Amino acid sequence: MKINGTPYRTIWELADSASAFAGVEVIDQTLLPHRFVTRKLTRMDEAAHAIKAMIVRGAPLIGATAAYGLVMALNDDPSDAALDHAYGVLIATRPTAVNLRWALDEMMAAVRHLPPQVRAAAARTKARQICDDDVETCRRIGANGLPLIQAASALKGGGTVNILTHCNAGFLGCVDWGTALAPIYMAHDAGLAVHVWVDETRPRNQGASLTAFELGGHGVPHTIIADNAGGHYMQAGLVDLCIVGTDRVTANGDVANKIGTYLKALAAHDNRVPFYVALPHTTIDWTMKAGVGVIPIEERSPDEVTRIAGRTDSGDVVTVTVTAPGSPAANPGFDVTPARLVTGFITERGVCAANAEGLLSLYPERRKG
Amino acid sequence: MKINGTPYRTIWELADSASAFAGVEVIDQTLLPHRFVTRKLTRMDEAAHAIKAMIVRGAPLIGATAAYGLVMALNDDPSDAALDHAYGVLIATRPTAVNLRWALDEMMAAVRHLPPQVRAAAARTKARQICDDDVETCRRIGANGLPLIQAASALKGGGTVNILTHCNAGFLGCVDWGTALAPIYMAHDAGLAVHVWVDETRPRNQGASLTAFELGGHGVPHTIIADNAGGHYMQAGLVDLCIVGTDRVTANGDVANKIGTYLKALAAHDNRVPFYVALPHTTIDWTMKAGVGVIPIEERSPDEVTRIAGRTDSGDVVTVTVTAPGSPAANPGFDVTPARLVTGFITERGVCAANAEGLLSLYPERRKG
Repeated sequence: MKINGTPYRTIWELADSASAFAGVEVIDQTLLPHRFVTRKLTRMDEAAHAIKAMIVRGAPLIGATAAYGLVMALNDDPSDAALDHAYGVLIATRPTAVNLRWALDEMMAAVRHLPPQVRAAAARTKARQICDDDVETCRRIGANGLPLIQAASALKGGGTVNILTHCNAGFLGCVDWGTALAPIYMAHDAGLAVHVWVDETRPRNQGASLTAFELGGHGVPHTIIADNAGGHYMQAGLVDLCIVGTDRVTANGDVANKIGTYLKALAAHDNRVPFYVALPHTTIDWTMKAGVGVIPIEERSPDEVTRIAGRTDSGDVVTVTVTAPGSPAANPGFDVTPARLVTGFITERGVCAANAEGLLSLYPERRKG
Repeated sequence: MKINGTPYRTIWELADSASAFAGVEVIDQTLLPHRFVTRKLTRMDEAAHAIKAMIVRGAPLIGATAAYGLVMALNDDPSDAALDHAYGVLIATRPTAVNLRWALDEMMAAVRHLPPQVRAAAARTKARQICDDDVETCRRIGANGLPLIQAASALKGGGTVNILTHCNAGFLGCVDWGTALAPIYMAHDAGLAVHVWVDETRPRNQGASLTAFELGGHGVPHTIIADNAGGHYMQAGLVDLCIVGTDRVTANGDVANKIGTYLKALAAHDNRVPFYVALPHTTIDWTMKAGVGVIPIEERSPDEVTRIAGRTDSGDVVTVTVTAPGSPAANPGFDVTPARLVTGFITERGVCAANAEGLLSLYPERRKG
């Protein structure tokens, strides 16, 4: 999408396609929204660090970065040992990311059987394909979600459609378009009047920083709100629909997503506001029957709750402690929204009900027996 | 309650009771939790400023400060004109605070009929009584809520009772004890094992700053969490009950409280976690039949969402901007939790169901006809 008028992907190759592979460049998302800085990643350990330090984040972008990390490793040393070592290092960067494993397994399947001397080139082709496929997947999610916004718009006689989102499931988390934001970008680009309520999404503030940054960059009207405010706005009739992303959907339609998603789903349900979850098929964990109480919840550093980075009036970026001295904090990174609170899923294949039958209707190849 | 071992009220007279009235001293709550500073208020306009600038906050403390503001005005000039002027200035400081009006009306009733030369002394007596009455009211709220915690403790065989609270309804918002925190202080002082999940309560962070500060000062075990986390902890069985305060309860039991309360009530209801609201009778608005969609919601400054104060590593308190540059923010201060989501009210008279009949059972004098 555009950043101040210039179209961007979140990851791109340093050299043009005809040249030797020299690494990739990514947007350093740890500095957003305060500074827009890109980083060159040329060695596998740099790619691993970028994932671990959340310079890149979001399931598809993590997968794409890991894929290119394998290319970098094979560029240096195409041996079995180097390949297996790189796989191990990269998969350990974010243990709960299903998409990370998927991308690395795709890469392994594409290169493991090849003679070492052709592995690097094949890996580069595959990594590029993973990126392009992700763009196409997200574009389809956008196209499939667009009619939901068009319908809401028609219902309001063309009036502004107010959409609430949580965390960042935009193009910054993917390669382009995003998941939850893809239908919104498409609606905006198609000339529909849309306005996005952006949950700030404490403690890491991905909404107030990343989602607001990318919506603003592309020119989509939006308003940042405290995570506490969404329920009130739904009660007041100021939210027409919710669209969020997800880190993992289980076979029955339970949704693991950024902490606080469950609370918004409860409020949507209480106020009959449609609550959609947008996702690529790679996010579905068909092996897990149900998610509530089962999906392991990552306990992240309390520092994310007690400390926050911001810009001073003189423009410096500083980190300050905002909590009472000596008080401990806890920081569960995700929660699980039961399928019963979800109106539907928006995937690259269409829109379906949030239950096993709904998911299988879009992915019939997953039916057993 | 205690702050680092020393017992404090939130407002106290500067001179001892035998001396001439010289004003009051309060804790500057705008500097908490970063700095503990007290402020002397000696003139009516200083008291008004303290309320308006939220140096004092919380319904009972606002009322107590306004009451002393009238004493200061009468100390300077006991005329009808001065009294009426002071009333007008003080009541305009926080237009939505029911308790502010109540306290000022009590003061007026106590002094308006008196000859000017005895008004100041009578006002001082009345203001002191308002403070002492508030302490007694809160003590009773604590005593009435204590059995709920004792029951939860017994149910767990004496194991730690985990209580979630939102915003600050502690002694810092009252004169002593607090409302929602009063039963918790009593349980802790009685030797019960309690642990409090403290919602940070964005955007003003009253939980992470004030509630954590006062629980820590008194030695009550607690953990600060993002507002997003409570639903997950309830789902995981890690919350035994919720206790919050309120700014206004309507005759049918609807509860206006700090933005985000509604979301926690939804989560409590979804997970069968008891959700209690603690309040003094002065918070009940008997004139309003129901609150959802009716109670006016204060729209506060977007700066509270976009900017936050914290301590740098070198100990300076600075304010930083945390949101994407150019992105607007909105900031509704309160939301309304429907009575159907509230398990019960804890008042100075006892515990009752959250409906009209429940409230009238504790306050039968409010029955009509």
